[in-house]
Amino acid sequence: MQIIDGKLIAEEIKNELATEVKRLKEQNLKIPYLVAIIVGNDPASETYVAGKVKACEQIGFRSTEIRLSEDTGEKLLLEKIIQLNEDEEVDGLIVQLPLPKHISPEKVIETIDYRKDVDGFHPVNTGRMMLNLPSYIAATPFGIIELLKRYHIETEGRRCAVLGRSNIVGTPVSILMSRKAYPGNATVTLCHSKTRNIKEITLQSDIIIAAIGSPGFLTGDMVKDGAVVIDVGIHRIADPTKKSGFRLTGDVKYDEVAPKCSYISPVPGGVGLMTVVSLLKNTLIASKKEIYG
Amino acid sequence: MQIIDGKLIAEEIKNELATEVKRLKEQNLKIPYLVAIIVGNDPASETYVAGKVKACEQIGFRSTEIRLSEDTGEKLLLEKIIQLNEDEEVDGLIVQLPLPKHISPEKVIETIDYRKDVDGFHPVNTGRMMLNLPSYIAATPFGIIELLKRYHIETEGRRCAVLGRSNIVGTPVSILMSRKAYPGNATVTLCHSKTRNIKEITLQSDIIIAAIGSPGFLTGDMVKDGAVVIDVGIHRIADPTKKSGFRLTGDVKYDEVAPKCSYISPVPGGVGLMTVVSLLKNTLIASKKEIYG
Repeated sequence: MQIIDGKLIAEEIKNELATEVKRLKEQNLKIPYLVAIIVGNDPASETYVAGKVKACEQIGFRSTEIRLSEDTGEKLLLEKIIQLNEDEEVDGLIVQLPLPKHISPEKVIETIDYRKDVDGFHPVNTGRMMLNLPSYIAATPFGIIELLKRYHIETEGRRCAVLGRSNIVGTPVSILMSRKAYPGNATVTLCHSKTRNIKEITLQSDIIIAAIGSPGFLTGDMVKDGAVVIDVGIHRIADPTKKSGFRLTGDVKYDEVAPKCSYISPVPGGVGLMTVVSLLKNTLIASKKEIYG
Repeated sequence: MQIIDGKLIAEEIKNELATEVKRLKEQNLKIPYLVAIIVGNDPASETYVAGKVKACEQIGFRSTEIRLSEDTGEKLLLEKIIQLNEDEEVDGLIVQLPLPKHISPEKVIETIDYRKDVDGFHPVNTGRMMLNLPSYIAATPFGIIELLKRYHIETEGRRCAVLGRSNIVGTPVSILMSRKAYPGNATVTLCHSKTRNIKEITLQSDIIIAAIGSPGFLTGDMVKDGAVVIDVGIHRIADPTKKSGFRLTGDVKYDEVAPKCSYISPVPGGVGLMTVVSLLKNTLIASKKEIYG
């Protein structure tokens, strides 16, 4: 059994990106520039955005965090987005979710210029992904694919169960794993809350991507020997033995499942650490205008 | 075994649309208007476009066929599209595929205003479909979903095999069958050229959608008793006993498979007849600005 080390791979990619920034600087070329908007004071959102900005600094990208108060009107936010769309210096533009209830996240996402949508949430990007055209891939699916690639895991012709059909993980990763590419070319079954007898499906699967949002959902008896398991869940479980009062766990009962696997991504230390580097990679792609010219 | 009668359902929908046009006329409201562009003289394309225009006439829609010569430059075609995008009278705009080799179909599709893209090929529409937002659904997936709906076929929690991962049929229908809706909520396995042991998967499936593009691919031994089979294939097979010299057949070996089915859509007479009415329905939706306001 080999652990898929998200921390190691994320560091590897950050180093590659830092090298690329150094090269761009030497050649006096444009340095990638990410702008992140945060509305309100949700502590988790603040942590995420701070992590993104810090990662930009580490590798030498330009970045700006724009903080807007909780009571910011939708109209003002959309105007701000349009202004940043038109700013040629800005390569990538993200708005941290969730938003306050009086603001429509759909409207916000569709207002961001799809050419700067480095979160990969705009319909043009999801649509082009479905059509197997170049696009920005959302952070988590991108991270999953990148981990499979960097560990040279064979996917062609293998049975793959994706557990969970969310817009940001399950559905897009099921498309990516199905399409004609590497990683891809797998035979994917997309499972969700209406699926009956999930165990029958997971037992037939060579690769299981668990993104169902239920702690410890995938148990040892649901996994066949030699399977590859990618755990996308991330849950805080109260744990008085920890200084923080909690520990992190995924959608997989790790102790039971890991011994059966050929490869497994742990929580923490797996997919979660890949999401920020995915964003950085998309921002570099945007800066170089590799997709939309 | 019940035959899913595409001709009957297509007529039913056409009647509904004709009634709606009558109502619009009585109330002096806008009549839906479809413009179809055809480049070159491909006989199959000419037949298809003529069929679409004729169907518009039958139900009372306005329609125009614009014929451009084979040597039309890409730039000229794109300018024509932009002009029709800006024409407020035009509700739906389609460009018949395939196009001559010197014209990029992607560029053409992405130039059509997604609000007029009643073929449902624009990334904004495929992307919104993936995100389970209202959008124009492409003709064949739309037709399949409509047939399942009109025959009240249960899909929730049922195992569904989609054979073929094309951009215009297999991949979108796999998403539609998976998503939280009716028809939908099925557990879908998307099979394709790299899938091993397809028979194992089809034998577990309650619903099989065959869109793999191989005549008679789905044989009797691959189907379990009581399955629902939708045949999307359409192939011309030489047949000297026919006046035309050929007969039409699908991806399903009908004689073997039909006796085992609870429902089956035949070829001809099934899904194929639904595609034009899907286009008409999308044009009506466009005219009423139901999706994009």
